Amino acid sequence: MTRQMHLTVQLISGYGLEPAAWRWPGIDPASFINADVFVKAAQTAERGRFDALFLADTPVLSTDVATAPPQQALEPIVTLTAVARETERIGLVATSSTTLNHPFTVARQFRALDLVSQGRAGWNAVTTSHPGALLNYGTGVPSRGERYERAHEFIAAVMALWGSWEDDALIMDKEAGRFADASRVTPVGLAGRHVASRGPLGLPPSEQGQPVVFQAGGGLNGLRLAGRFANAVYNNPFDIPSGVEHAAAVAQAASTYGRSPDHMTVFNGIITSVASTRKEALERREQLDALGDLETKVAYLGQQIGVPLSIEDIDKPVHQSLLENARANPADPRSPLALELAGEGLTVRRILAHGTMNYHPVALGTPDEVADILQRWHEAGVGKGFNINPDATDGLEHFVDEVIPILQERGLFRREYAGTTLRDHLGIPRQNGLPAGYGQHVGAAS
Amino acid sequence: MTRQMHLTVQLISGYGLEPAAWRWPGIDPASFINADVFVKAAQTAERGRFDALFLADTPVLSTDVATAPPQQALEPIVTLTAVARETERIGLVATSSTTLNHPFTVARQFRALDLVSQGRAGWNAVTTSHPGALLNYGTGVPSRGERYERAHEFIAAVMALWGSWEDDALIMDKEAGRFADASRVTPVGLAGRHVASRGPLGLPPSEQGQPVVFQAGGGLNGLRLAGRFANAVYNNPFDIPSGVEHAAAVAQAASTYGRSPDHMTVFNGIITSVASTRKEALERREQLDALGDLETKVAYLGQQIGVPLSIEDIDKPVHQSLLENARANPADPRSPLALELAGEGLTVRRILAHGTMNYHPVALGTPDEVADILQRWHEAGVGKGFNINPDATDGLEHFVDEVIPILQERGLFRREYAGTTLRDHLGIPRQNGLPAGYGQHVGAAS
Ligand SMILES: Cc1cc2nc3c(=O)[nH]c(=O)nc-3n(C[C@H](O)[C@H](O)[C@H](O)COP(=O)(O)O)c2cc1C
Ligand SMILES: Cc1cc2nc3c(=O)[nH]c(=O)nc-3n(C[C@H](O)[C@H](O)[C@H](O)COP(=O)(O)O)c2cc1C
Repeated sequence: MTRQMHLTVQLISGYGLEPAAWRWPGIDPASFINADVFVKAAQTAERGRFDALFLADTPVLSTDVATAPPQQALEPIVTLTAVARETERIGLVATSSTTLNHPFTVARQFRALDLVSQGRAGWNAVTTSHPGALLNYGTGVPSRGERYERAHEFIAAVMALWGSWEDDALIMDKEAGRFADASRVTPVGLAGRHVASRGPLGLPPSEQGQPVVFQAGGGLNGLRLAGRFANAVYNNPFDIPSGVEHAAAVAQAASTYGRSPDHMTVFNGIITSVASTRKEALERREQLDALGDLETKVAYLGQQIGVPLSIEDIDKPVHQSLLENARANPADPRSPLALELAGEGLTVRRILAHGTMNYHPVALGTPDEVADILQRWHEAGVGKGFNINPDATDGLEHFVDEVIPILQERGLFRREYAGTTLRDHLGIPRQNGLPAGYGQHVGAAS
Repeated sequence: MTRQMHLTVQLISGYGLEPAAWRWPGIDPASFINADVFVKAAQTAERGRFDALFLADTPVLSTDVATAPPQQALEPIVTLTAVARETERIGLVATSSTTLNHPFTVARQFRALDLVSQGRAGWNAVTTSHPGALLNYGTGVPSRGERYERAHEFIAAVMALWGSWEDDALIMDKEAGRFADASRVTPVGLAGRHVASRGPLGLPPSEQGQPVVFQAGGGLNGLRLAGRFANAVYNNPFDIPSGVEHAAAVAQAASTYGRSPDHMTVFNGIITSVASTRKEALERREQLDALGDLETKVAYLGQQIGVPLSIEDIDKPVHQSLLENARANPADPRSPLALELAGEGLTVRRILAHGTMNYHPVALGTPDEVADILQRWHEAGVGKGFNINPDATDGLEHFVDEVIPILQERGLFRREYAGTTLRDHLGIPRQNGLPAGYGQHVGAAS
């Protein structure tokens, strides 16, 4: 097996991961509506030979816009089409919901993106549990069981529609007047409990056949979906052991459906804060924190370690008398690290700078230190991939210019793209239509 | 009132209007999947100061792919996003169905296109009657009444979602940490019989507020929809009187809803075949016909004039003995022209070249002759606009280089864009949200 890792990059709505990144110097405060920001970032990531740019997406305004931009980019298909036209190799992965859309639209839009990008599209299929998003679509709130049953039908329908236009159907012989082999362009006639579509699609396969399917979240339900259909999975482990466990479960799920675990990549979410020294990286994070809602953060740190803390304590270590009664909150896996740092006598501000409250682990420090962290996770077997979340978007350039060369030096990351499509980058075979053997393992579905 | 006309251009799937145009010299046979074709055409049309590029769309494969490409482009949002990034002024109008989509998706994707193009987007809202398209979406076949009832709710929901982010809500004060005025970003809480959406949208208005709404087809139902919501209408009259009649009905429909008829443009579909001489234009059309299904065309011409005709008759005039019993088919308004040309002794091939079987009137001849035809229609009062359908895509260049300068010379068409947005081009005011006075004329809706 190759020693190399796979990398996608995520910029949320264009500013980077930290909620206050929109206020960071050099960041365009209008990034969430500026496709140029995504184009430029994708070009930077392509220079760094990233596998793909990734757009998560939940169609709901979930932030308080008084102080923070929306959490989703412009619109995934529009944004990635703009990026496709101004990049050459990097993959383009957009999230689209199996609960809120129709398979014909998803099949058509992602195939169009795949054609425009010459085989670089990926579809992150999620079931969307956010009640606000469901209200935007007036669908009521389906049960988890309903959502995942629909997701199985939905992805099967999309893949069947993709396969409805077979490889080599297109002839385009102007002389003879033969446009296509009509026997290779056929209806799929799918009708399930939740979705139905006749087909065929009006678009032929791309250079990679069909877009790569990604899957994210959903516990056991998500694993079944991934095992049956996906070639890549997003995961958000807080530590290495849970990352390793999930990667093993993903491999197992693929095997259950008769699919090769080698054709699965698990992308683990990591936040990066890179600087010339570890101290500068921490200071960068402190400055980013200072632009956001520090009060809430301090109070929540108090809950993590079980002591009362308020904003007045920000530049002091946690008092010794409090530390004696402190203990890690068992409901939050990040709490032991917070407690440990408090015990070392760091100020509250500095503890927060370590990312004890972030949604992903934070890889911070010098380029070498950040590379070390990725290498440690990678070699432990977390599934070969990382979804890099720069703290603020300018952090992507630091990562590409300083961390990537180290990973390449160590033989952990490609120096050049081996091929032109996203499937090439991920080392997975061409596919157009449902997975080989689909339906033979249906018993495993529920 | 201005003497000037408005022009959009339509290329179907990139080849131009004639079904066999994909075989025409110089045309890329893969145009239907090649966004470059649309980008280049849009740049040409922009050089000619066209109001907009228009993509009709019915999500179904309705042609026989053995001999002809699909009738719709790649995918409207993807195609127009590519075009938006590589043009500066021309409007971008995509068709999207109120029967097959969800308002939140339409509101979001068209707003994203409007932002990416800096205020140049338009939405042609159609109800989609094609049974194949309905089957692709597994929706069954709603009655016409249901389709139009849903369309009213749907367009209102889309406009309300657009208006859910008010003008000037965006602040983006990095220093003070104020991103937006949250009191101007509010839910719409819409729930009708067919669609529901809570909102708000996560995207602010563009330079023109919201995309321009176009409407197409549907008789009286369509007129009501247009009168209530649209600023532009597509119409396919076969002759000037029916064009004038429809334009008057559109103006009347606007007035019924308390909206200004001056803010309505009706785009009449016209096919253009331009050459140095009238004879060359006819020969060009004969050559295009010869690449297609001539047999069917000849037989149908026979039906139009009530005589038996077959492919062997192609290079002969209709025989005198047949002409004596010929009469125009009352079911097809193009039949009198066919009969007249037959009476003049033209060969069958030459009769067909006049476009007696085309879905739109054909303006053919020298640049001056084509300009004359447009002027005649325009001055008769068909609604100020034309949707130009070049016979094959290279015809767009002839039109821009040769016909446009004549129209400009005659004061019938702009020499420069007066503004930057599609609303500027059409001479209609900024709008963000439902039309002023919406709801006061509800009685007129049904
Ligand atoms: C790494 C990761 C990324 C996710 N990305 C998205 C996303 O972009 N959009 C979305 O609606 N949900 C996203 N989800 C949510 C999942 O699809 C899922 O709904 C969630 O984990 C709740 O689980 P449930 O579906 O079992 O209720 C993501 C989950 C994970 C773990
Ligand atoms: C000029 C014109 C353009 C149209 N463009 C489209 C289109 O792009 N897609 C579509 O589905 N229907 C299109 N239609 C069809 C109409 O929306 C409508 O469905 C059709 O006229 C049938 O009428 P009905 O809706 O009353 O059944 C168009 C109609 C006209 C007259």
